[in-house]
Amino acid sequence: MRIALIGAGRIGAVHARSIAASPDAELVLVADPVDGAAARLASAHGAAVTTDVGDVFADDTVDAVVVASPTAHHVEQILASVEAGKAVLAEKPVDLDLARADRCLAQVGDRADRVMLGFNRRYDAGFAEIHRRVGAGEIGDLEQLTIISRDPAAPPVGYLAGSGGIFRDMTIHDLDMARFFLGDIVAVQAVPQRLDPAFAEIDDYDAAIVTLTAASGAVAMIINSRHCAPGYDQRLEAFGPRGALRAENHTATSVVLDAAGSSGGRGPYLDFFLERYAAAYTSELAAFVAAVREGSAPTPSLLDGRQALALADAATESARTGRSVAPAPVPSTASSAAV
Amino acid sequence: MRIALIGAGRIGAVHARSIAASPDAELVLVADPVDGAAARLASAHGAAVTTDVGDVFADDTVDAVVVASPTAHHVEQILASVEAGKAVLAEKPVDLDLARADRCLAQVGDRADRVMLGFNRRYDAGFAEIHRRVGAGEIGDLEQLTIISRDPAAPPVGYLAGSGGIFRDMTIHDLDMARFFLGDIVAVQAVPQRLDPAFAEIDDYDAAIVTLTAASGAVAMIINSRHCAPGYDQRLEAFGPRGALRAENHTATSVVLDAAGSSGGRGPYLDFFLERYAAAYTSELAAFVAAVREGSAPTPSLLDGRQALALADAATESARTGRSVAPAPVPSTASSAAV
Amino acid sequence: MRIALIGAGRIGAVHARSIAASPDAELVLVADPVDGAAARLASAHGAAVTTDVGDVFADDTVDAVVVASPTAHHVEQILASVEAGKAVLAEKPVDLDLARADRCLAQVGDRADRVMLGFNRRYDAGFAEIHRRVGAGEIGDLEQLTIISRDPAAPPVGYLAGSGGIFRDMTIHDLDMARFFLGDIVAVQAVPQRLDPAFAEIDDYDAAIVTLTAASGAVAMIINSRHCAPGYDQRLEAFGPRGALRAENHTATSVVLDAAGSSGGRGPYLDFFLERYAAAYTSELAAFVAAVREGSAPTPSLLDGRQALALADAATESARTGRSVAPAPVPSTASSAAV
Amino acid sequence: MRIALIGAGRIGAVHARSIAASPDAELVLVADPVDGAAARLASAHGAAVTTDVGDVFADDTVDAVVVASPTAHHVEQILASVEAGKAVLAEKPVDLDLARADRCLAQVGDRADRVMLGFNRRYDAGFAEIHRRVGAGEIGDLEQLTIISRDPAAPPVGYLAGSGGIFRDMTIHDLDMARFFLGDIVAVQAVPQRLDPAFAEIDDYDAAIVTLTAASGAVAMIINSRHCAPGYDQRLEAFGPRGALRAENHTATSVVLDAAGSSGGRGPYLDFFLERYAAAYTSELAAFVAAVREGSAPTPSLLDGRQALALADAATESARTGRSVAPAPVPSTASSAAV
Repeated sequence: MRIALIGAGRIGAVHARSIAASPDAELVLVADPVDGAAARLASAHGAAVTTDVGDVFADDTVDAVVVASPTAHHVEQILASVEAGKAVLAEKPVDLDLARADRCLAQVGDRADRVMLGFNRRYDAGFAEIHRRVGAGEIGDLEQLTIISRDPAAPPVGYLAGSGGIFRDMTIHDLDMARFFLGDIVAVQAVPQRLDPAFAEIDDYDAAIVTLTAASGAVAMIINSRHCAPGYDQRLEAFGPRGALRAENHTATSVVLDAAGSSGGRGPYLDFFLERYAAAYTSELAAFVAAVREGSAPTPSLLDGRQALALADAATESARTGRSVAPAPVPSTASSAAV
Repeated sequence: MRIALIGAGRIGAVHARSIAASPDAELVLVADPVDGAAARLASAHGAAVTTDVGDVFADDTVDAVVVASPTAHHVEQILASVEAGKAVLAEKPVDLDLARADRCLAQVGDRADRVMLGFNRRYDAGFAEIHRRVGAGEIGDLEQLTIISRDPAAPPVGYLAGSGGIFRDMTIHDLDMARFFLGDIVAVQAVPQRLDPAFAEIDDYDAAIVTLTAASGAVAMIINSRHCAPGYDQRLEAFGPRGALRAENHTATSVVLDAAGSSGGRGPYLDFFLERYAAAYTSELAAFVAAVREGSAPTPSLLDGRQALALADAATESARTGRSVAPAPVPSTASSAAV
Repeated sequence: MRIALIGAGRIGAVHARSIAASPDAELVLVADPVDGAAARLASAHGAAVTTDVGDVFADDTVDAVVVASPTAHHVEQILASVEAGKAVLAEKPVDLDLARADRCLAQVGDRADRVMLGFNRRYDAGFAEIHRRVGAGEIGDLEQLTIISRDPAAPPVGYLAGSGGIFRDMTIHDLDMARFFLGDIVAVQAVPQRLDPAFAEIDDYDAAIVTLTAASGAVAMIINSRHCAPGYDQRLEAFGPRGALRAENHTATSVVLDAAGSSGGRGPYLDFFLERYAAAYTSELAAFVAAVREGSAPTPSLLDGRQALALADAATESARTGRSVAPAPVPSTASSAAV
Repeated sequence: MRIALIGAGRIGAVHARSIAASPDAELVLVADPVDGAAARLASAHGAAVTTDVGDVFADDTVDAVVVASPTAHHVEQILASVEAGKAVLAEKPVDLDLARADRCLAQVGDRADRVMLGFNRRYDAGFAEIHRRVGAGEIGDLEQLTIISRDPAAPPVGYLAGSGGIFRDMTIHDLDMARFFLGDIVAVQAVPQRLDPAFAEIDDYDAAIVTLTAASGAVAMIINSRHCAPGYDQRLEAFGPRGALRAENHTATSVVLDAAGSSGGRGPYLDFFLERYAAAYTSELAAFVAAVREGSAPTPSLLDGRQALALADAATESARTGRSVAPAPVPSTASSAAV
């Protein structure tokens, strides 16, 4: 499978490596309006390079596109890809605007089974193992899901200003994970925190607790913080009538120190997502390639991307009002207006 | 110190043993309208016995009273004890009715420093250690507190019917723990669950998530369930800018099994509160005895008991409305009307 | 059961508390040639006191004797106790001289079922659990036993000089534990270490590795050190064809710290034997009392004490010669000469 | 760097992948007298293939050779490589015969800095971290090293018959690890076990305890077994005056199960060396490539390979005699006779 990559930034480089590691895929083209990074990445992987993203869609030898561009371009590039008959793996989020995501969904229509959203954590070996074991009934019907997700340190204010806020930028991963485990969510309650006053100035939060109620009656709690001294805190606990399955944090090695005053100390948590989810990114790309080859619908889907965004919007409103908010349903007559 | 015990049930027996273990206290009288249990308990500890609770207050040689009677009697027995000039350690909750608790507080007035509420978990060695280390600044200012508290199995329906509901009966311990760590709480959000339909019939819940916002900006999450297959799940995690302190579950021994298919398996969690908090009950009694001897105010106080009940009421209302609820403040002109 | 205690030192005080905690036993007499300590201990427990140990054997109301005197007196006091018709719980070791221990065994003769040796670790809840689970076949036939036993810090040189050396003083506990799990030992190999030059001066070692081969073909490794910075290191691992059972170190609480640079850190190991084996001493005394009441033979027996000493002697010789040494068998015609 | 691989078996395939993963190396030739496997491996990596090992030494474009052939060929292929001016990474052991290894060492002479022995465990991230931290003085001077090394299941009898026995085949990895941490070893004591009678028939053992004394006074214990139900048991503990550093076993994920009757259970240990040491093999190859590029001497060296074999011989003799055995020193006038 011949793959083109749009976006040669940090996450684009991750996808380039995953493509190179796949025996079934080849990176053939890297497109980025900023020349230097794309050229370096293309050269390292023996791919062609272009600053004109349109070249990707015009190239008939390209089978699939990985969209790793800034969020504002996701929708147009997803649409252009499917219009050109190519499969797409698009980074999250679909967009920061739910109406726009809905229009994208409508325009993609029945070509949705050619689109995969990059919620990489579904491919983390530990979370996937818990999902599989829960599905096999090991702990009975899932009742409570706890997701702890703390970044080691806040991104620059410049990034935050255009991020859509903590719920659309950071929590969205956890919201998708909640849907992965619990299915449809009917109510969202969010309790936000502003620990660093700088977040008040940009009308954002640096920590939050989100509680989701599923149609099944199960609940999920998400605990977020933009900082965490021991590293990238990524835990998940699924609880049911027969027990609990927990994914604990990762450390670089299994080395433990016992010393005067303290025993059992390991290194800090793997820090940051490039390290913690390195294998998940590779598995995600492999799943995308396998789905495209087999003609099956890749997962998480474009709809999954839209639904996570709807939950992020609901969390944003709940944080503002202190009320339980139902996520906006997918419009029944999906608009076909231009995006 | 000569102590009388009111109530010879399960928790009364725990207090009797703690009194016996104290070098500074002596159990002299056990009062319970049901004769048999009281007589057995008194005999085991060399104490006198009575079925007339009034004997406790009339006995001038009694220095202090431990109230371990059913909840409906707590207020009257606390008041009778302080009226009789005795110090009191009363089991939680103060009462199931906040107005009644407020009147109790008003009537006790400046004798409140003679009353201790039995929130035993403050005396758990692990939770107390975290409290002390947080207080010492080890993780910086507390930002997020996570309390996981799951009972091994639901009590009989007969008990539940008169329990006041999950928030006043079970969560109240965790609400006090949240106040112990975070101080004043300004907002409560509760998401209830009814996993077993029997709980709908009695208008109660068998699981819940409660999120509390403190005046300081810190938040606490409480995760409750009336059942837990691995045992009595009692964990607490305090998170701040410099790190996190966690209290993990207890097992009977430190024995670990590595076998085909599974490694690192310990026994189940200690089950139930009599085992898990055995040492906490002893420390609680010792702290009460020490405070009374020194003439200092024991903690948690009667006011702590009232505030936990106000939070339980707020959680009950939030669970019903889906809204964030502020706990009722202590009436500014405390009523002196008869209780 | 009325118990007399000989020896009012540190370990005597432990036994006094265990007797006080037993509902079936009463401390009636404390004997110690040094007056002060015995008087204080006796007074705390409401017992009589004497500086003449002979009073213990002469008192017909004494049912049982706990021998917690210096090692040099163990044999004579065990013999005097059984001669006086009393049951005995004697601290380890029986003696530092194997021939003397053999003569003691011969003189005690068929009254051996009245004597228990104080190898308290057999009553540690974790080690006992592993012993029971191994016995139940959970890991198959035991093949390899690893005992890690490190003291937090070396005792004073004055103590060491009369201790009989590391194998008879410290390792003897582990040698008994090896016999507890593996039964008869046929060969001993010891590799000694002198890390602190002071131990060369007193012809002793401050660390050692001892490997034991059992008649069954199983082996045990003992890893000893006279110092250990994280505390009293007491671990045991039993390995068989179906898996392994491990007892990990104890910490004061289950509190864990995750901070910048380190995660998962607990407190140091419980330090020292009075803390780590507090419950084991209580269980040991309870087992002694129960055996005497039921007329059954308490365990570990006087013979167990003799066999551990024989292994210590073999280890001492192996350390000197670098050869595998068989422990001296119990003399077939046990001497009846005066001890 | 252009690398040729001799031997297309299981371990040869591992090295082929490591070479492919290196940005600085290229697999150009695979040699194996058995055609099929070599052709498949060569084809997968775009390398040429030959059944004539001599082609490797004759090819002037080959910079380095990886020797992954059967043990009997190691010496001749190491010598042929260095004679042809190529660097060599040879799998362990050098040979099963110490005299032959000594002659190899003599003939290689001052070209030894072109030869690396494949003791891959030195490149395990955890063991390497402990080595680095011990070297940095974190626990003080190393006093006791414990290595637990148990294979999940015994290899076929056909393999065992030509393996040289447990000490030369299996323990040799641990003996090298002991030297890695402790330096020169002066005495070896081995206690062998024959749990499965089949091992008696082939004059071999299926388990053993080996205790090594270093010139420094430190000791190492090695605990081996040819079977282990929970998987490939690979632990190491370094103990010194300031504490201990331990490498714990690896599991596939960090997922933990808490259920009725058992808490804290993870999956089995990674099983077997291809999984457990996958990253170590990659790091080993990278270290070899880096050393060759820089012209520095790779480590572990050919001498390290010889010394581990001398320790294996000493262990074999100690197992037979029950005595402490000194390893044979490197002959002072190294023979230059033909190998």
